Amino acid sequence: MRLSTRGESVPASPIRRLVPYADQAKQGGAHVFHLNIGQPDIPTPPEMIEAYRSFSEPVLAYGPSAGLPVLKNEIARYWSLWDVELSPEEVVVTTGGSEAILFALLAICDPGDEVLVPEPFYTNYLGFGSAAGVRIVPIPCSVDNGFRLPSAEKISALITPKTRAFLYCNPGNPTGVVYQKEEVMRLGNLASEHGLFLLSDEVYREFVYDGMAFTSAFHLDGLEDHVVILDSVSKRYSACGARVGYLATRNKAIIEAATRYGQARLCPATIDQLAAAAGFASHEKYIGGVIEEYQERRDVLYNCLTSIPGVETHRPKGAFYTIARLPVKDAEAFAIWMLTDFRVDGQTVMVAPASGFYATPGVGLDEVRIAYVLESEALKRAMDIMGMGLKRFQELNP
Amino acid sequence: MRLSTRGESVPASPIRRLVPYADQAKQGGAHVFHLNIGQPDIPTPPEMIEAYRSFSEPVLAYGPSAGLPVLKNEIARYWSLWDVELSPEEVVVTTGGSEAILFALLAICDPGDEVLVPEPFYTNYLGFGSAAGVRIVPIPCSVDNGFRLPSAEKISALITPKTRAFLYCNPGNPTGVVYQKEEVMRLGNLASEHGLFLLSDEVYREFVYDGMAFTSAFHLDGLEDHVVILDSVSKRYSACGARVGYLATRNKAIIEAATRYGQARLCPATIDQLAAAAGFASHEKYIGGVIEEYQERRDVLYNCLTSIPGVETHRPKGAFYTIARLPVKDAEAFAIWMLTDFRVDGQTVMVAPASGFYATPGVGLDEVRIAYVLESEALKRAMDIMGMGLKRFQELNP
Repeated sequence: MRLSTRGESVPASPIRRLVPYADQAKQGGAHVFHLNIGQPDIPTPPEMIEAYRSFSEPVLAYGPSAGLPVLKNEIARYWSLWDVELSPEEVVVTTGGSEAILFALLAICDPGDEVLVPEPFYTNYLGFGSAAGVRIVPIPCSVDNGFRLPSAEKISALITPKTRAFLYCNPGNPTGVVYQKEEVMRLGNLASEHGLFLLSDEVYREFVYDGMAFTSAFHLDGLEDHVVILDSVSKRYSACGARVGYLATRNKAIIEAATRYGQARLCPATIDQLAAAAGFASHEKYIGGVIEEYQERRDVLYNCLTSIPGVETHRPKGAFYTIARLPVKDAEAFAIWMLTDFRVDGQTVMVAPASGFYATPGVGLDEVRIAYVLESEALKRAMDIMGMGLKRFQELNP
Repeated sequence: MRLSTRGESVPASPIRRLVPYADQAKQGGAHVFHLNIGQPDIPTPPEMIEAYRSFSEPVLAYGPSAGLPVLKNEIARYWSLWDVELSPEEVVVTTGGSEAILFALLAICDPGDEVLVPEPFYTNYLGFGSAAGVRIVPIPCSVDNGFRLPSAEKISALITPKTRAFLYCNPGNPTGVVYQKEEVMRLGNLASEHGLFLLSDEVYREFVYDGMAFTSAFHLDGLEDHVVILDSVSKRYSACGARVGYLATRNKAIIEAATRYGQARLCPATIDQLAAAAGFASHEKYIGGVIEEYQERRDVLYNCLTSIPGVETHRPKGAFYTIARLPVKDAEAFAIWMLTDFRVDGQTVMVAPASGFYATPGVGLDEVRIAYVLESEALKRAMDIMGMGLKRFQELNP
């Protein structure tokens, strides 16, 4: 019984596919520092946990397909903090940011259509591309210039009659790049000129350091019909297990199509939405300390990384990831070897090989993505171990 | 900005698209008996609610992409009650049964492939077909013979080189049919003969009345590579808002493909899975009384329906729906009119027009789906109101 071509070819997540090696390491008694996945150790807002703990209905019922009003109202209130006036009717709540990506692709792309994505990109775009039959076409960027966007000329050379949208993550996973206003406008202008949608994945919106400004796609003028914001509570409120996200757009037709796809899956989980609403309601109280903490970790990581001989990276300006080029030929082999063979006092480190964040074949083979989701002392220790591991790995693989 | 062809054409759910009329009726002060949606009024097992209330981790973290081990173990234990030995590795937990349907279609079908579905069928199959680019091809069945499956000859005449699977719901939503062992084997034999998958949506597995036996696709011999079970806790435990389902199969390649699609969306919601595990753990204690209650409601509904002049239906044997042919030309117009215009002492009834449960154009226009999800007294009252409404509607539309 053969599967579908897409079912056979949908890629395993580079963030998760080495998990069996990590599990084995743990079974063997090792402590694994997880820098492979954006799972923060920061406490979830207690108000969110309390929302679960105080549920007291006798029946756990469906909610509306586009989301609970209490949550949509909180999302609209939240956007007012960004000087954006958003109506609850311009929001469709989704099961994680993941489903927002899928619904957006389904609403605007038919099978065979193309979406342009700055590379390296959030690897799971490939999985949703596979599901929707949409080709993810990379816009090559590089650590060498801090992953800045190429010129409008270079980008527009990639546009074909099949191109339907730009999809970008800002602040960037996996790069930590924060696009300057001029760069967001560059994509916006190209979208306007070529009749493309602008899918802006802003799940790290607050995670911007060094006092930099953040430009949301909602801050662009004249692109109301083009812009779709993709968002999630996972990172903002350290609530990855809640699986609550949303898409927001001024484009009524997209709201309607996403709602119809939403009807097919009935609704997002009810109590998780109540918790998400509590998260947004506690936003102002919660977020400041979190950003401070991540900026400190960013500094720790950057200082540690740049002190390891042969490692090339940039100073990430946002999100909580960076891409680092390692002095090895095969970063995946190194990542696996760390889990299978290398221990320092019974400890090792798990990172995500970066090649899975690229669609261009053969690119990123010597790179890893590192998530700085552990507190500074753990991060320092993990970087020490990785540095020692690199040295040993180079000796073994000269 | 034009949407995709599929985004424009994905159907609104006939279960939900009349909701704005119901909302308006309620705003106008009416009480609406909701027989349009399978949202039971039966209390969720208290053990499930308690799982939410007792969550006490500081961080609401991701779980594994294929589901929490505690839940997969409970699912395996549950299947032992059905004399089926299932390993937790043969289970992929999904966000509702909905996602199980989507992952199964993605794993086995490429865009343009076809899936054969006995008609009328669970309407949301069309939404997932749209998402996956898969054509839902109906196997016509009729209320006139209680929605029994056609002969093997008639079914095989529908198989084309594009056909990849049978997808069927047993016990049946929206029909209430329970396929006899011989019928399940008929599909199984055709699947074997033609190299097709057998996707068996068994979310109503326990809901079988009059002492009838239930045949799971897992009870068929020699079809290990063909069978994929789709399941959910929504109906079994009156926990529609939990959005926890799973697919189960002996076919390792499907488990792997579904897991990779699962990695793209990271994981099902964490606390909801803990609650679902508590639901399965309380199964034996919970389910018996529920089935008794539904059988009683089934009797009430059937007796009421058959006493309304001009209504044709069958005695449903399972699930908690039935299809009824009404003495009207346009059942959707009737359903809307009930919400907009008809009240008895300030009360009215919402049913789902059945045409959206058919893929064959023009079929089912005079039919509705009725969900018997309310307790018997409410159900009787709702049927009285519908009977009076039908009489008045016929007078107005002779």
